[in-house]
Amino acid sequence: MGSSRPDEFETIARLLRPLADHTAARGLLDDVAVLEPPPGRTLVLTHDTMVAGVHFWPDDPPDLIARKLLRVNLSDLVAKGADPFGYLMSCAWADGCDWHWREAFVRGLQADQAAFGLTLLGGDTVSTPGPLTLGATLIGWGEPGGTPSRAGAEAGDAVLVSGMVGDAGLGLRVTQGEVEGLGEGDLLWLADRYRIPRPAIELTGLVRCAAHASADVSDGLLADVGNIAAASGVSAVIDLEAIPLSDAAQRWCDNQPDPARARLDLATAGDDYEILLIVSPNRADEVVAEAVRLGRSMTLIGRCDVGQGVTARYRGTTVKVTKAGWRHR
Amino acid sequence: MGSSRPDEFETIARLLRPLADHTAARGLLDDVAVLEPPPGRTLVLTHDTMVAGVHFWPDDPPDLIARKLLRVNLSDLVAKGADPFGYLMSCAWADGCDWHWREAFVRGLQADQAAFGLTLLGGDTVSTPGPLTLGATLIGWGEPGGTPSRAGAEAGDAVLVSGMVGDAGLGLRVTQGEVEGLGEGDLLWLADRYRIPRPAIELTGLVRCAAHASADVSDGLLADVGNIAAASGVSAVIDLEAIPLSDAAQRWCDNQPDPARARLDLATAGDDYEILLIVSPNRADEVVAEAVRLGRSMTLIGRCDVGQGVTARYRGTTVKVTKAGWRHR
Repeated sequence: MGSSRPDEFETIARLLRPLADHTAARGLLDDVAVLEPPPGRTLVLTHDTMVAGVHFWPDDPPDLIARKLLRVNLSDLVAKGADPFGYLMSCAWADGCDWHWREAFVRGLQADQAAFGLTLLGGDTVSTPGPLTLGATLIGWGEPGGTPSRAGAEAGDAVLVSGMVGDAGLGLRVTQGEVEGLGEGDLLWLADRYRIPRPAIELTGLVRCAAHASADVSDGLLADVGNIAAASGVSAVIDLEAIPLSDAAQRWCDNQPDPARARLDLATAGDDYEILLIVSPNRADEVVAEAVRLGRSMTLIGRCDVGQGVTARYRGTTVKVTKAGWRHR
Repeated sequence: MGSSRPDEFETIARLLRPLADHTAARGLLDDVAVLEPPPGRTLVLTHDTMVAGVHFWPDDPPDLIARKLLRVNLSDLVAKGADPFGYLMSCAWADGCDWHWREAFVRGLQADQAAFGLTLLGGDTVSTPGPLTLGATLIGWGEPGGTPSRAGAEAGDAVLVSGMVGDAGLGLRVTQGEVEGLGEGDLLWLADRYRIPRPAIELTGLVRCAAHASADVSDGLLADVGNIAAASGVSAVIDLEAIPLSDAAQRWCDNQPDPARARLDLATAGDDYEILLIVSPNRADEVVAEAVRLGRSMTLIGRCDVGQGVTARYRGTTVKVTKAGWRHR
């Protein structure tokens, strides 16, 4: 195309229509998607919006921005044990989003549609004089009674988290040039963890079966634990030593003067898109083993108790939590 | 609150949660909405995004911006004969959206939730350094086989349109100070028609029963007729004299040097959010009468034929269509 300002109709017809391969999308010709929900399943809906300069960098590779858009939403479905089906997408294109940029963006969508079994159902594309602003509404199917909330945690329950914590937060700081003392390999790996989350889709069924309560870790581990505790009317104690760290994050911690403070940083950094799972204490070992069998690590990091609030502990002493997570202002 | 930069959590807890009165929303505590689709009905989904300065003016009253957001989406559901149920909303707040502004915005949502039987199901609120950017994903329920597409028009079919055409387009020009020769009452009325569409929700059932094809009029009457004709593989002839005009638009037309050109302007202006209905020719009178009985005017404005493309006629002569509608670049 070459044009620096592709129009809405061309973008839909030439770039987006090939992504809408399900009859429900009606070839994106009809302003609506129409589908028959699978009998006996619940409809699960989620929406996340991302703004350039706020949730990603404008010069991030377009295919990674696209994949992040789908994945931050997928993470919400996985955390609720819902099988993803499709999405409606909102693109408010900024000036720099020329045809070439949009092609790369669509390649990212295509890759993740294939990876996660998603299809484009509809949406809207407009132009904006401001920063690129993207939104996706994902829909998935759950089992009746099998969609855990944040409110089901009980005193005594085990707090588990999938994967590793803190890599994305460190990765953000890497993209800002704020991380020192790590090798090039670690820096690249961490930045990549910030740019492209890995939602724990292999755990969807396990979440459905095992969770008293669950959420994805997006605002920062301690903030998300705090939300579950508040919604459930319990307190929680998190053991900072137990928090699972990647080799790169471990090396970063080892360089920090205050190890408790370093782990607290990682536990409040956000953007992990891992699963926080609250389970019955006598099922914790079994759930950890099953997660590993499914291909994702899972770690016991704390317990729920009576009372309220979240406490972090390091080597037996309580660490003051000064910032539980990011608040988007 | 008084704070000029309310945070995301306060906005959700204090302003948005009261709008989420259905159990499916889980009190907005859970990142997802979960619901059981009504048995035997199809799920109909649509999404529209609006950017300040592109789709509305930043200094429009916040409650009207909110209502427009819901109504442009409602219009898509109505045009497909789907009963609206609820919505997920994306708000990327600009700098000026202080607590007071947001309160007024939420009052608009509240008013239209009540007017149209909608409930807030979820979404996302973030901040943006750019213009206020709003999105809504509406979900509704249709009848299996009862959701008309754009592709069902047949040669010989009648082309009907609900309500009045061109008021919103004129209203946009009023807000830009570009309309002369009308009284203050007409100017205010037209600007209001631009700021707040009136989706023809009373016609939802009629659309479902009668339409061979349908769409809402959002890009401009002739553009939307053209989309239906193209999707259906037919041509269409629109009679510019027949296009229904409000008294204000009629007075504007009467002031214009070229009456055909004036009506063509109105038929390509966009933002009408009326329903374009393609029906069997022998049912046209009955559909018009039924619409009127339901409280909405409906007018026969043209016919479909074999061939392709859209032709506009005025007093028996063909008028060249130079601009079929707005393309958002």
